[in-house]
Amino acid sequence: MKQARKHLKKVGYPSGTILYTGNDLDKEVEIELITYSKEKSSIKNIKSLDEMDFSSDDLKWINIRGLHDIDLIKKIGDIFKISNLTLENITHIAERPKVEFYNNYMFLTLKTLFFDEDNIEIIQKQVSFILMHNTLITFQEDKNNTFDMAKKRICENEGLIAKKNIDYLLYFLIDGVVDEYFVALSKIEEKIEDIEESIVGNSQKYELQEVYKLRKGLVIFKALTWPLEDTIYDILNEDSIISEDTKKYLKDVRDHLIQITELVTFYREMILGIFDIHLSNTSNKMNQIMTTLTVFSTIFIPLTFLTGIYGMNFKYMPELYLKWSYPLFWILCLGIIFGMYRFFKNKDWM
Amino acid sequence: MKQARKHLKKVGYPSGTILYTGNDLDKEVEIELITYSKEKSSIKNIKSLDEMDFSSDDLKWINIRGLHDIDLIKKIGDIFKISNLTLENITHIAERPKVEFYNNYMFLTLKTLFFDEDNIEIIQKQVSFILMHNTLITFQEDKNNTFDMAKKRICENEGLIAKKNIDYLLYFLIDGVVDEYFVALSKIEEKIEDIEESIVGNSQKYELQEVYKLRKGLVIFKALTWPLEDTIYDILNEDSIISEDTKKYLKDVRDHLIQITELVTFYREMILGIFDIHLSNTSNKMNQIMTTLTVFSTIFIPLTFLTGIYGMNFKYMPELYLKWSYPLFWILCLGIIFGMYRFFKNKDWM
Amino acid sequence: MKQARKHLKKVGYPSGTILYTGNDLDKEVEIELITYSKEKSSIKNIKSLDEMDFSSDDLKWINIRGLHDIDLIKKIGDIFKISNLTLENITHIAERPKVEFYNNYMFLTLKTLFFDEDNIEIIQKQVSFILMHNTLITFQEDKNNTFDMAKKRICENEGLIAKKNIDYLLYFLIDGVVDEYFVALSKIEEKIEDIEESIVGNSQKYELQEVYKLRKGLVIFKALTWPLEDTIYDILNEDSIISEDTKKYLKDVRDHLIQITELVTFYREMILGIFDIHLSNTSNKMNQIMTTLTVFSTIFIPLTFLTGIYGMNFKYMPELYLKWSYPLFWILCLGIIFGMYRFFKNKDWM
Amino acid sequence: MKQARKHLKKVGYPSGTILYTGNDLDKEVEIELITYSKEKSSIKNIKSLDEMDFSSDDLKWINIRGLHDIDLIKKIGDIFKISNLTLENITHIAERPKVEFYNNYMFLTLKTLFFDEDNIEIIQKQVSFILMHNTLITFQEDKNNTFDMAKKRICENEGLIAKKNIDYLLYFLIDGVVDEYFVALSKIEEKIEDIEESIVGNSQKYELQEVYKLRKGLVIFKALTWPLEDTIYDILNEDSIISEDTKKYLKDVRDHLIQITELVTFYREMILGIFDIHLSNTSNKMNQIMTTLTVFSTIFIPLTFLTGIYGMNFKYMPELYLKWSYPLFWILCLGIIFGMYRFFKNKDWM
Amino acid sequence: MKQARKHLKKVGYPSGTILYTGNDLDKEVEIELITYSKEKSSIKNIKSLDEMDFSSDDLKWINIRGLHDIDLIKKIGDIFKISNLTLENITHIAERPKVEFYNNYMFLTLKTLFFDEDNIEIIQKQVSFILMHNTLITFQEDKNNTFDMAKKRICENEGLIAKKNIDYLLYFLIDGVVDEYFVALSKIEEKIEDIEESIVGNSQKYELQEVYKLRKGLVIFKALTWPLEDTIYDILNEDSIISEDTKKYLKDVRDHLIQITELVTFYREMILGIFDIHLSNTSNKMNQIMTTLTVFSTIFIPLTFLTGIYGMNFKYMPELYLKWSYPLFWILCLGIIFGMYRFFKNKDWM
Repeated sequence: MKQARKHLKKVGYPSGTILYTGNDLDKEVEIELITYSKEKSSIKNIKSLDEMDFSSDDLKWINIRGLHDIDLIKKIGDIFKISNLTLENITHIAERPKVEFYNNYMFLTLKTLFFDEDNIEIIQKQVSFILMHNTLITFQEDKNNTFDMAKKRICENEGLIAKKNIDYLLYFLIDGVVDEYFVALSKIEEKIEDIEESIVGNSQKYELQEVYKLRKGLVIFKALTWPLEDTIYDILNEDSIISEDTKKYLKDVRDHLIQITELVTFYREMILGIFDIHLSNTSNKMNQIMTTLTVFSTIFIPLTFLTGIYGMNFKYMPELYLKWSYPLFWILCLGIIFGMYRFFKNKDWM
Repeated sequence: MKQARKHLKKVGYPSGTILYTGNDLDKEVEIELITYSKEKSSIKNIKSLDEMDFSSDDLKWINIRGLHDIDLIKKIGDIFKISNLTLENITHIAERPKVEFYNNYMFLTLKTLFFDEDNIEIIQKQVSFILMHNTLITFQEDKNNTFDMAKKRICENEGLIAKKNIDYLLYFLIDGVVDEYFVALSKIEEKIEDIEESIVGNSQKYELQEVYKLRKGLVIFKALTWPLEDTIYDILNEDSIISEDTKKYLKDVRDHLIQITELVTFYREMILGIFDIHLSNTSNKMNQIMTTLTVFSTIFIPLTFLTGIYGMNFKYMPELYLKWSYPLFWILCLGIIFGMYRFFKNKDWM
Repeated sequence: MKQARKHLKKVGYPSGTILYTGNDLDKEVEIELITYSKEKSSIKNIKSLDEMDFSSDDLKWINIRGLHDIDLIKKIGDIFKISNLTLENITHIAERPKVEFYNNYMFLTLKTLFFDEDNIEIIQKQVSFILMHNTLITFQEDKNNTFDMAKKRICENEGLIAKKNIDYLLYFLIDGVVDEYFVALSKIEEKIEDIEESIVGNSQKYELQEVYKLRKGLVIFKALTWPLEDTIYDILNEDSIISEDTKKYLKDVRDHLIQITELVTFYREMILGIFDIHLSNTSNKMNQIMTTLTVFSTIFIPLTFLTGIYGMNFKYMPELYLKWSYPLFWILCLGIIFGMYRFFKNKDWM
Repeated sequence: MKQARKHLKKVGYPSGTILYTGNDLDKEVEIELITYSKEKSSIKNIKSLDEMDFSSDDLKWINIRGLHDIDLIKKIGDIFKISNLTLENITHIAERPKVEFYNNYMFLTLKTLFFDEDNIEIIQKQVSFILMHNTLITFQEDKNNTFDMAKKRICENEGLIAKKNIDYLLYFLIDGVVDEYFVALSKIEEKIEDIEESIVGNSQKYELQEVYKLRKGLVIFKALTWPLEDTIYDILNEDSIISEDTKKYLKDVRDHLIQITELVTFYREMILGIFDIHLSNTSNKMNQIMTTLTVFSTIFIPLTFLTGIYGMNFKYMPELYLKWSYPLFWILCLGIIFGMYRFFKNKDWM
Repeated sequence: MKQARKHLKKVGYPSGTILYTGNDLDKEVEIELITYSKEKSSIKNIKSLDEMDFSSDDLKWINIRGLHDIDLIKKIGDIFKISNLTLENITHIAERPKVEFYNNYMFLTLKTLFFDEDNIEIIQKQVSFILMHNTLITFQEDKNNTFDMAKKRICENEGLIAKKNIDYLLYFLIDGVVDEYFVALSKIEEKIEDIEESIVGNSQKYELQEVYKLRKGLVIFKALTWPLEDTIYDILNEDSIISEDTKKYLKDVRDHLIQITELVTFYREMILGIFDIHLSNTSNKMNQIMTTLTVFSTIFIPLTFLTGIYGMNFKYMPELYLKWSYPLFWILCLGIIFGMYRFFKNKDWM
């Protein structure tokens, strides 16, 4: 939650103000420069952008981890001629996934999503991309496996990354992020199945709150992945820096995003179904309780009335003095019990 | 509420009648004239439009606060050649957000929205804009922070306002209004979270009415912000007085409006989820109450029947005269209680 | 209701049969001829169409009130060369709002809507328009304020009606009808607010039926106003007899129709919310009742058991003969009551 | 129901197999040949297609009643050069309404719908049309009033049928089928109103099943009429054998189909509303029952406790021996009853 | 279920990795080569692709059953110049149905669906097609009747398969798969009808879980068939290897897929309706139980109070000593019972 409040930090500032609106403030900002070509590759952790060398024709991937060093962001803006609006979007972590095409670069922003199983909560981190000729700059709010894997692949010249152009690297990273969506969804799926199983047995209160949290999580999940499908669609239809070859790969990513939306719809349906079962369980339990009460009460209430009768102190109650009264009383009681039993059996209440 | 009734004030009047349909009638109408260029700026509170000076090339922003001075509105119409239909829209506060393009000006109307936390109600005020070459006229139904901030920025030559053209000022004001939407949504979000927390603990009646009011508020919120997204889209696609540069900024505003719609959908989902939890809580509480009643009743009803038996006055009841009858009776009672306890324990009712 | 049955009257007739399918059969059909120009105007109630004079260049408005005089309708068809299909549509009162463009005229049909507060019902009457060069023919199923107002305006040369062309008159009448939609919605709004208030206090059966009737009414309301928005859109986009100037006014009408659809959606949401509150109220009341029963029963049931114990007639019950037994019994009872009270207080049931 | 199972009969057959999948197998197939022009007309029941005479220029309508004579269907295919796919569609009764345009003919298939009031079920029969120059072939699964009426009109030279071309006959038949939709809807409407009225009084179980059946019926109704609207739209937009004149009439039919969809939506809303009222009625009844139980129990339980007290056999109970004890006991009881009465009156439970 | 988890197997692998993500790992992979022309046909089970003879002009259908032999898949890719992306899609069984057009081939993937009636579960198996000039390669995850039937038809030169081109074979297989959808839906339909019938009689817990499983199954069913409709639409609108003649047949398949979506919607509606009836049944049963309890309790509670009165041991209770007291007591009791009976009869509770 706290979706709307993310925007509050920006309220009151003149537009064009570059401002980090997230919470990851205390981690140190890291800059990595990965240079690679088909033949060779190198990874450097650099302190300052001045260390960069722009002379070679090698592909360059500049990875910034941490978004709160505004000066750094501004400097990148200066060096690569990035629009102020783009810089604003990079540091404002409440942006919707979107793509924007500029003369000299393409800007893409999206969210990585993880599912925190303990709190049943979706954790989102913003990742932005600036794709230029031969150069990709990425801005990560937090660490991310996909990025580490890409670095490993480049270093070890594994797979297609080093063989293809810089736009393939962009595809690789997006694809990795979308794969992580599937990981998150798998965990949600398992959680739903757990609840499904336990709701069949017995339903307890805390589960329902889990169901509610999952429901919330799925709405957020959809809101953050669905615009990405649209974004990829925009990339596919724009004549941009992305080659036709890479677009074929991106088309696959888009298909996966459509599947994700379908899965979210499916999970939502399941959650609604689970709630209905829960409701029905509660009603059934109530019915069972009430049936027990009713059966007991209606059997004993007339019997107790009978004992009351013969507990009265009227002078003239002839039955009291007959020898067979007491045994007959018991027979009457048993008769009533048996009759009631048949009555309830008939009604299928016992 | 009272949405439809706002229109009633206009029913029966010939169309083209300029009529203020709001309630802010007693405040005095203020006219502010802000003249600015890159070099200098001035703010004047003027009494009459005749005081204005149209000779200079400076950018002019005329801000009218209060919509009930029909003569003033008409005079502006005369001076700037504004269509009667536009003037009608400015003073009729029940208009949907919309943009209209005329030969000599662009007309835009929208709502500022605030969330009244005490009454859980959305408060809306109408703001209209007439954008002309070098001149922007704004019509506010009520005071507004964004407008004050814009004035301050212009005076102090802060940010981009004074450096850019008059259409940037329009963007700045719209952006401020949209930022205030986020403020309102944040408050709604907090309210929902409050209710969410309290519904987990115990559910009381007044909360449900708050939920209902929030639900109502969100529908109104959506109805008043969603058409604005469409309106901005129209501006972006129309070849008008708005420069391409400003359109880039407006595109960001549109993204924010899409986010707002998504947030409203999200909150609606949460409210429906909260209601479901409330329903389930009520059922659970009922189950608990009924279980208590059933357990107590079914334990004591047969015992009371037993006491009834031995309270009867039959002459011939041999048990009554045996020495061990009374202790045996107690043992029987305890046996029944223990049996019942096991029975309920088994059913998980205790 | 009785929506589908309106069509039954036409079943079995050859198509092209002009047939009045409404119920307003006994009122006399009135024909009014209003002739006007910028300078002068005249209103005549005429008996027969032969009295009309077609020589002058003045604008002519022929208003027919009552649709069951089929001969009259046919005669109009002959005189003005109206298609048989159009005449069929004029008298068949179950038509959806729609516009049709013919070579020599434009045909428009729509509904006036009123809200009958006593029966909580939408009352619809059909109005059809045939717009030709200089002439407008209107067909009313029943009387209507808007039409009277238009006549008054023309006679008194008030407003723009007499100053503009005949298509402005058409706009004026449509605008009036749409204004009446707002009047109907205002009444619905008030009704909903009444129910809203009373449902907060106490919920009684008849209210829920009112809610149901309102729900039904809103569906009908939407079904009859929503196609009109589409119809106006068609008029705006067709190169027809309607001037650009009048289209600007009609655009405003369309905006109002969109607002009406939004309001209906809003009211529907409120009604669903009210039903949810009602449901929750019923559950809460049940909980309260059951709590009362449970508290009373569980306190007294063990006490009654105790009295039963000491009402037994066993010979050897030593307690019965002790002096302090009775006071101790009372102390025990009070102890049980106090214990129970604490137990229920803890559970928040008292 | 049994919607999906209709397709089963075709599974496993090579496509292009002409196979009747309905149940009307035992009725004899009838072939009628209606020949007409503006001047004269004739109807013949023929045994074999060889009896037909193709020399005259008169309009020809061949009406086949019964779809299970596969040889006949194939022969028609041979004579008129009908595609095998079309023949397949004619005999496979589970087809959706659709139109297909071939070089030499237009193929249209749709359903006639009737409402069986006793079983609350929609009965559908397939009708297919092959429209060629001067010739219309119709394939009916079962008898149908509209077709009889068309024959009568042609014979008696009534209405426009005999005066217009063969495509007008097609329109006439479609219009008749759509009119029968309104008849079916009227019956559904009446049924809903019946239930509506009875649910207000008292709700019994069988009604709810009727509501469920109506709900099912409406979904089927929509699924079978809604594609027809689309189909007519396709005919209107295709440059085919249908003349512009007839298209004007078909446009009216399309408007009616839109109305039908709106009515179905309306009835669905009503049915959901009725279910909500039913639910609320059930809850209210429960509340009433529980209130009765609670009032009775809570009044008498303390009284019974009191009688228990003074039924105890303690030796030392001083009250028992006082003269005014018994009358005082009664006064106490009446006091408790009165107090309880006030308590329940206050709570509005009595 | 386990929808999202299917994707997990691919996470972490470089894209372009061909990886079987299903579970059918232990079955042996079979390769069948079917060669046919109008005159002759042959079926061969081959061990290796090297056995294939590409010299003849006969139509070739290569059917691979089992997707886990990655080397085989790669070899096919080499021989027929299939894109790596296509090969990836063939072995990744979680793909959505889709079509892709390449220069030398068309790639189509879809699911066969079966309904496991015992577990109330949809079982899906992936089938992929690569259509080239004169050659069709099919990849089946598991055995399938439709494929066997096609082989039989080709061998026996039955129907149109052997007479038409290779794209007709593709159509034939797709049509068979869609027919199997209808088979699955028929079984679902029967299941729903079973539940429908039993829910009318008496509602038991296990049924509701069946309803839930059916609901889940329908969502999956729709998610896997609905994109296929879109896919066929794409094929129909692409100028590809598919002939116009075959497209006519595919159009029919598309109509069937639309029907399937409509049926799924219909079943979903029924399931929701069934749940509502279940809910209402539960409430009705509760009402019945509570009524029984209330009637019994309220009749006997006052009677028991009366017996309590005359069981008290007050010294001075004059009634106790009157001769007619006891009979009068019984008359009073019967009077109360009769009065209560009338009261409940009035309320329709008995």
